[in-house]
Amino acid sequence: MLENKNTSKTSISELGEFGLIDHLTKNFKIKQKTTLKGIGDDAAVLAAKSSEEIVVTTDLLVEGVHFDLSYMPLKHLGYKAVVVNLSDVYAMNAEATQITVSIGVSNRFPVEALEELYEGIHTAAKYYNIDVVGGDTTSSRTGLIISITAVGRIAKGKSVYRSTAKESDLLVVTGDLGAAYLGLQILEREKKVFEVNPQSQPDLEAYTYLIERQLKPEARKDVSKLLKELEVTPTSMIDISDGLSSEILHICKQSKVGCNLYEDKIPLDQQVISTCEEFKMDSTTIALSGGEDYELLFTVKMDDFPKIKGNPNFSIIGHITHEKEGVHLVTRANEKIPLIARGWNSLSEDSK
Amino acid sequence: MLENKNTSKTSISELGEFGLIDHLTKNFKIKQKTTLKGIGDDAAVLAAKSSEEIVVTTDLLVEGVHFDLSYMPLKHLGYKAVVVNLSDVYAMNAEATQITVSIGVSNRFPVEALEELYEGIHTAAKYYNIDVVGGDTTSSRTGLIISITAVGRIAKGKSVYRSTAKESDLLVVTGDLGAAYLGLQILEREKKVFEVNPQSQPDLEAYTYLIERQLKPEARKDVSKLLKELEVTPTSMIDISDGLSSEILHICKQSKVGCNLYEDKIPLDQQVISTCEEFKMDSTTIALSGGEDYELLFTVKMDDFPKIKGNPNFSIIGHITHEKEGVHLVTRANEKIPLIARGWNSLSEDSK
Repeated sequence: MLENKNTSKTSISELGEFGLIDHLTKNFKIKQKTTLKGIGDDAAVLAAKSSEEIVVTTDLLVEGVHFDLSYMPLKHLGYKAVVVNLSDVYAMNAEATQITVSIGVSNRFPVEALEELYEGIHTAAKYYNIDVVGGDTTSSRTGLIISITAVGRIAKGKSVYRSTAKESDLLVVTGDLGAAYLGLQILEREKKVFEVNPQSQPDLEAYTYLIERQLKPEARKDVSKLLKELEVTPTSMIDISDGLSSEILHICKQSKVGCNLYEDKIPLDQQVISTCEEFKMDSTTIALSGGEDYELLFTVKMDDFPKIKGNPNFSIIGHITHEKEGVHLVTRANEKIPLIARGWNSLSEDSK
Repeated sequence: MLENKNTSKTSISELGEFGLIDHLTKNFKIKQKTTLKGIGDDAAVLAAKSSEEIVVTTDLLVEGVHFDLSYMPLKHLGYKAVVVNLSDVYAMNAEATQITVSIGVSNRFPVEALEELYEGIHTAAKYYNIDVVGGDTTSSRTGLIISITAVGRIAKGKSVYRSTAKESDLLVVTGDLGAAYLGLQILEREKKVFEVNPQSQPDLEAYTYLIERQLKPEARKDVSKLLKELEVTPTSMIDISDGLSSEILHICKQSKVGCNLYEDKIPLDQQVISTCEEFKMDSTTIALSGGEDYELLFTVKMDDFPKIKGNPNFSIIGHITHEKEGVHLVTRANEKIPLIARGWNSLSEDSK
């Protein structure tokens, strides 16, 4: 299933480290006014403003842990690696402006493979209007390692933290949940089918949305602008990378509050519902623990209810309570179940 | 030779990803005024000033490529990983203020090993007065991966690039060169001796400086201040990570100039000279190609000669020429030899 249009193979050592960086980044254009110096010096240099704060976030993606190249095309991987980082910038309510990209790569990858990866990075940089301002390319003993650092900007004092949710705030989520995890299950299933019978032609028609959410997720660049237009300031915010329950628990722990989450309010795509039925999985569990949705979870003051209500971008899924009341899922049967973190955790994956 | 005082072993999965980050970073204090939010949110938040520029640099270190844990104690590795990044910030003439640290680790490492690594990171952060403001801890299939991003600040318009050396400028280097590479050779030799005879007691007395330069290098935080005190503004600057020749070629290529480097001016420590004699190695070659010295190489206007001359921190090793004259080493025998990049290159290492 690996996308491989390019059959020529150039060894990385033919270019050397500096030649390789030059080659991979030659099409990268600087678009942000704040980028004073991009790739090619000891460090990137960025302009700053006293009226702004700088946000910085970093992520490390490791082959065999965070991605499987047997069904993840390199171009998509490059795109997703950028998106995952930008999502953290947007979760501060900030605008993303620059990234650095470090790649560790074993010599089983020809230059053409890295070109695919960088094409994905380039596409994401264009789409999200960010500059690639630095990076490092090195060898690895095994597999591919991608480390991206994203830099963003936000008006002074306007960063939205996880620790500032207040009792009686409403809990709101963007988009829908669980699709990316199910997309991964579909791809894993097809990989097994393919291993048994390489001639099999998978029919993935019923799962297109799920697979897209897994292979080509988008970060919610639009939410900060949408909220500004609605004149809503979120009281706390986090992105959903590990699963809804894990992120709710982060907000509650850091804000020292409790929460009631309503099962019947959790937004699910029709493909999530039908695929859960097919797989005999509980869709609520998938939404709570699936992860990789890259939606934003935030709280707003109860007074903002009329501004959020009915907006197709947002679902009000619960409300913040006093810390003593704990963190609960209120089921369709009106039972209260304590919420536990069972998000996707790459460290526990290791012990598989 | 691996330092291992701590014999208890706690599995990483016992703590989980978030527990592990909390555990490893609990002693990290925020000291920089510009750190508004450190570890524990989607991103770090840093204050900015219109009168300053922000510099950002990143490095990826991979076990088996950049370090060998059989002679690199984890505490030293943590320290060095920070230093390597700060060196790039200082090479912009900037002050380093924050870092993020991402670690990928296989389950052969117990929590206690990561504690050692973070102790080294912590020690470096204290010594260089920087805050650790973020990071990511994940598993890797094999070995240890460290990705650090450093953030620094410099007065607006005062960043010193590689691309701004001018004809007739003087070429200056801090400290001395070649020791870190020789330190590595000594450690590699001792490793082989140890493999043959684990009872052998190495006598490393004659190589203490070399080994220290390899295992616990320091970044030249002092140089920016020293130059300011001397009222010298470097016209271009780079740090020496890959070897003197490679760095000179970077400056010349990006500044579109040539250079004459004088062999007899290259600063060498007495241990470098004596060890080169013992190993029957050419000390000039070691200084040119050894790498990992983390000294700063810079150019100054010829008018600044009296301010630099005789200063024990600096050696004037050459001068910048017209691009057409090329880049040459002028030997002790007064021969001109074209300088070629043979720096330490982790990508070519891969093909060993």
